[in-house]
Amino acid sequence: MKKAVVLLSGGLDSATVLAIARTLNFECHALSVDYGQRHRSELTAASNIAQSLDAKVHQIIPLDLTVFGGSALTDPSIAVPTQIANSDIPITYVPARNTIMLSLALAWAEVLDCQDIFIGVNAVDYSGYPDCRAEFIQAFETMANLATKAAAVEGKQIAIHAPLLNLSKKEIIRTGLDLGVDYSITVSCYQADAHGHACGKCDSCRIRRAGFAAMEIADPTRYQ
Amino acid sequence: MKKAVVLLSGGLDSATVLAIARTLNFECHALSVDYGQRHRSELTAASNIAQSLDAKVHQIIPLDLTVFGGSALTDPSIAVPTQIANSDIPITYVPARNTIMLSLALAWAEVLDCQDIFIGVNAVDYSGYPDCRAEFIQAFETMANLATKAAAVEGKQIAIHAPLLNLSKKEIIRTGLDLGVDYSITVSCYQADAHGHACGKCDSCRIRRAGFAAMEIADPTRYQ
Repeated sequence: MKKAVVLLSGGLDSATVLAIARTLNFECHALSVDYGQRHRSELTAASNIAQSLDAKVHQIIPLDLTVFGGSALTDPSIAVPTQIANSDIPITYVPARNTIMLSLALAWAEVLDCQDIFIGVNAVDYSGYPDCRAEFIQAFETMANLATKAAAVEGKQIAIHAPLLNLSKKEIIRTGLDLGVDYSITVSCYQADAHGHACGKCDSCRIRRAGFAAMEIADPTRYQ
Repeated sequence: MKKAVVLLSGGLDSATVLAIARTLNFECHALSVDYGQRHRSELTAASNIAQSLDAKVHQIIPLDLTVFGGSALTDPSIAVPTQIANSDIPITYVPARNTIMLSLALAWAEVLDCQDIFIGVNAVDYSGYPDCRAEFIQAFETMANLATKAAAVEGKQIAIHAPLLNLSKKEIIRTGLDLGVDYSITVSCYQADAHGHACGKCDSCRIRRAGFAAMEIADPTRYQ
């Protein structure tokens, strides 16, 4: 059974990715990063999802990005916006977050002797973050294959899988439902409360809610 | 005054890089990563170097890479070799270390509105780590310029400076001495004791000692 490292935030997208990786018959090593995010209940959600979708291991690694600040998700003095974002990249963008998370996944993959990394980035119904685009993922993969002993010396090429990249939120939800994902245990909200109940107002809540509406099914999200 | 983020390990190379960045008149934000390394006195050394070379700020960010293991530097059950390494990459290689450190530097750089990152990698008198080569640094820079809001949207291109890349250890030491680096406060040893005293036997000690010998000057390293 081939191993994979799956980045698991606790939200809808990464839960779907874990289900996809399991369907592809990977032995899944789920990785979450406790980066000081406001929405801490997403880490609890990640643990529940890892168990529900039969990940072999779930590792939460602490990395306090609040020391850098610069985002509404890591700096308590910056409010999470609840208005429709304009065309600019919103303040919920966390500098270099996906670069850092993929780097950590790369380190774990090398130790596990594993060549497959899964990430739930999506460039359709998303918030405009630059590190959610295909060209970023491709550049990371190229870099990763020069960075590690496994790839550079032993010829074990790393593949960064981003199976949601070109799907709409509706298509992601349809895929997940087909694979048995229980979306009621996922937390997407940027300011979910301690019980994982969503605000229903932030960008992430809006995009998620629109996805269920487009699917014409009941939204299983637990709101505040 | 332009800002730079300078990765500072506490060793000879990164101290020299900080001196170079200061000479180029950058306001230096020094970044060290407490990744659970054996040689913890290098973090104390990093603080002393940051102060001695007039960094504006020195940030130590904790990131416990021992959860992944896989290296003699982060796994207490793996001994640091004291024999000459063969042609293979040694067990002191920490999986994806430079990728992770550069990612953290990238995050901080973006928050600081800074476009210059300095790292002391070196591909001449080094231990054969894949993430110390020019092609890796170049690939990281390409990826970084797709990853961040600053680069991707605002056109603020990131430059990864690796000024030691093609220098021998002797040339690095000569450069540092010209710029006033006090090498007695730097710690290169993989298993330095709590006082920063070097073993004199590991790969890193051997390469460093040979550098001073090649310069035909007294080795200021404090040995055990």
